[in-house]
Amino acid sequence: MALISPSRRLRRTPFSDGVEAAGVKAYTVYNRMLLPTVFDSVEADYHHLKSAVQVWDVACERQVELRGPDAARLMQMLTPRDLRGMLPGRCFYVPIVDETGGMLNDPVAVKLAEDRWWISIADSDLLLWVKGIANGYRLDVLVDEPDVSPLAVQGPKADDLMARVFGDAVRDVRFFRFGLFDFQGRDLVVARSGYSKQGGFEIYVEDSDIGMPLWNALFEAGADLDVRAGCPNLIERIEGGLLSYGNDMTDDNTPHECGLGRFCDTQTAIGCIGRDALLRVAKEGPVQQIRAIAIGGDRVPGCDRPWRVTADGKPVGQITSAAWSPEFDTNVAIGMVRMTHWDPGTQVQVETPQGRREATVQENFWR
Amino acid sequence: MALISPSRRLRRTPFSDGVEAAGVKAYTVYNRMLLPTVFDSVEADYHHLKSAVQVWDVACERQVELRGPDAARLMQMLTPRDLRGMLPGRCFYVPIVDETGGMLNDPVAVKLAEDRWWISIADSDLLLWVKGIANGYRLDVLVDEPDVSPLAVQGPKADDLMARVFGDAVRDVRFFRFGLFDFQGRDLVVARSGYSKQGGFEIYVEDSDIGMPLWNALFEAGADLDVRAGCPNLIERIEGGLLSYGNDMTDDNTPHECGLGRFCDTQTAIGCIGRDALLRVAKEGPVQQIRAIAIGGDRVPGCDRPWRVTADGKPVGQITSAAWSPEFDTNVAIGMVRMTHWDPGTQVQVETPQGRREATVQENFWR
Repeated sequence: MALISPSRRLRRTPFSDGVEAAGVKAYTVYNRMLLPTVFDSVEADYHHLKSAVQVWDVACERQVELRGPDAARLMQMLTPRDLRGMLPGRCFYVPIVDETGGMLNDPVAVKLAEDRWWISIADSDLLLWVKGIANGYRLDVLVDEPDVSPLAVQGPKADDLMARVFGDAVRDVRFFRFGLFDFQGRDLVVARSGYSKQGGFEIYVEDSDIGMPLWNALFEAGADLDVRAGCPNLIERIEGGLLSYGNDMTDDNTPHECGLGRFCDTQTAIGCIGRDALLRVAKEGPVQQIRAIAIGGDRVPGCDRPWRVTADGKPVGQITSAAWSPEFDTNVAIGMVRMTHWDPGTQVQVETPQGRREATVQENFWR
Repeated sequence: MALISPSRRLRRTPFSDGVEAAGVKAYTVYNRMLLPTVFDSVEADYHHLKSAVQVWDVACERQVELRGPDAARLMQMLTPRDLRGMLPGRCFYVPIVDETGGMLNDPVAVKLAEDRWWISIADSDLLLWVKGIANGYRLDVLVDEPDVSPLAVQGPKADDLMARVFGDAVRDVRFFRFGLFDFQGRDLVVARSGYSKQGGFEIYVEDSDIGMPLWNALFEAGADLDVRAGCPNLIERIEGGLLSYGNDMTDDNTPHECGLGRFCDTQTAIGCIGRDALLRVAKEGPVQQIRAIAIGGDRVPGCDRPWRVTADGKPVGQITSAAWSPEFDTNVAIGMVRMTHWDPGTQVQVETPQGRREATVQENFWR
């Protein structure tokens, strides 16, 4: 692996000092911000995540804030998910699509109030799309990126650690709900959510100055829980079928291709910019779709470009994320497969940089 | 320095195989694409750039293509620079601003035809802003990112190398003009431009499949010119005052703060979305502006976050790019300085991670 050159453009986060002190070994760049990828090793981090509790600097999940009388209208223009029944205090996973139904992002929308929303974004400058739409449609709404940096606490002991810092009431926060919890005199949004299947929370840290005090408080409170600095784990997220925008999907893909059709209420999401295009897609169905794929043989290398999936030598799809899973004793992978070969159990071949491998389309992800 | 974790999301380019074979040591990420930063060392790369010729993988300068009857109208909506006199075959450096006059990007616009433009972008997803505006204003224009990857040839021997591959006519291309030149039966846009002050060209490589053949042709033709793989060089670009979007300016800044007032024809750029805001700025003038700053003492560390600039202990600005210059025997830097302290010769202090340094506001950049 090559080195990463530091510059202001690859933004540090309110937690970077803590991340460095914890011995971060590698980064990726996400929304022009540093996102740690390895502390001990991807595999050691994985075992620890599944057995203890980790604190993750996911400040790169930047927020797009919508404020004003047209905030809810604008939010519905962005997504085919019907938001009418969504109450303040809820988080919704929302595909965001352009006028052709192409995925622009797959964020979590946080409804703070009827006229105030945060969109906690995946890796694309969604702010620019939202600002352009708000401007073009002359909506009465302010759109900007506030000083809010999510910090995730993930793992089976996440509840215990969080309760020590925020009080036992935090245990009662339900999945994809949030509450306001005090830390050093500030009310912070704490949601039960996160980019792992091990359970946990995301703390929306408002105002950077409180970042390191909170980081330190979590580590002090969790010493006997073996709390460690961690990060979204490649192996665990593939096992759990957590998609990565830019890896497993791009603006070339519709939500239906990404298996996100259940988040598209195309009939009722009136006002959604991509609705016409998606009505067509919903009617005909996608011709390719994301699938869990097990790749045979020993450990595959890192997937830094799409790997062709073939059957009898003909292209039928591509792999975009892959890793060796110690728990499931196979290479776990995420790929886009054409309908002719997407049925569970279908045998295909994957052209990795180390040669062709046999692979099997799975019925489900591994957890 | 930490490592960079490979993934599909950090996109490879049509030239990545060549870059790797040339022994790239470090990358940055630019428009979610890999951009090399070091081959030998930043300083050795700098000396070579100034004496020979380098081939740069700058595919990360992605293109936003505008096509259709409203293309020219849309282009003028994006920038305060008056484009009415711009002929096909010209390249214009254009500040792109939002409705408040905040910089969204500082690209080069390439006018292919009245109804077809490329915007060769700096590091932000300008595509999303342009798509949002086109959609909101219901313009009759197609907006997308085509398969076009710039390859730069920079350095004092750039003309000689290019002439060997594209013929002597390439020597006649004037600064910020382009011509169409044949390579293996394809017409490629070749412009005299680039992100250095050493002279050279940018080849807009259409269709990825021709990337490595062109890369190899340049290296074969230039063996006796000591052609090497290179990249935008931190030292050289600071000496030359080449700004970096995301480093030296963000959407917080107006073009006037960035010293780009000469590219703002605010009176005549009718239709520009940020015009009202910029009329106000042009009238009052900015209260802070980008300046060349020489930082005393020995070699400063890499500038990975803004460094405070102070005078008598009070904040008067910030440094956002800095490097030791072997040629000018000082630390060269780019910073934003308040009007009270921006006159040439003003003494200020810079708070680097290694302590406070004396510094001097320069009249001009170093070349």
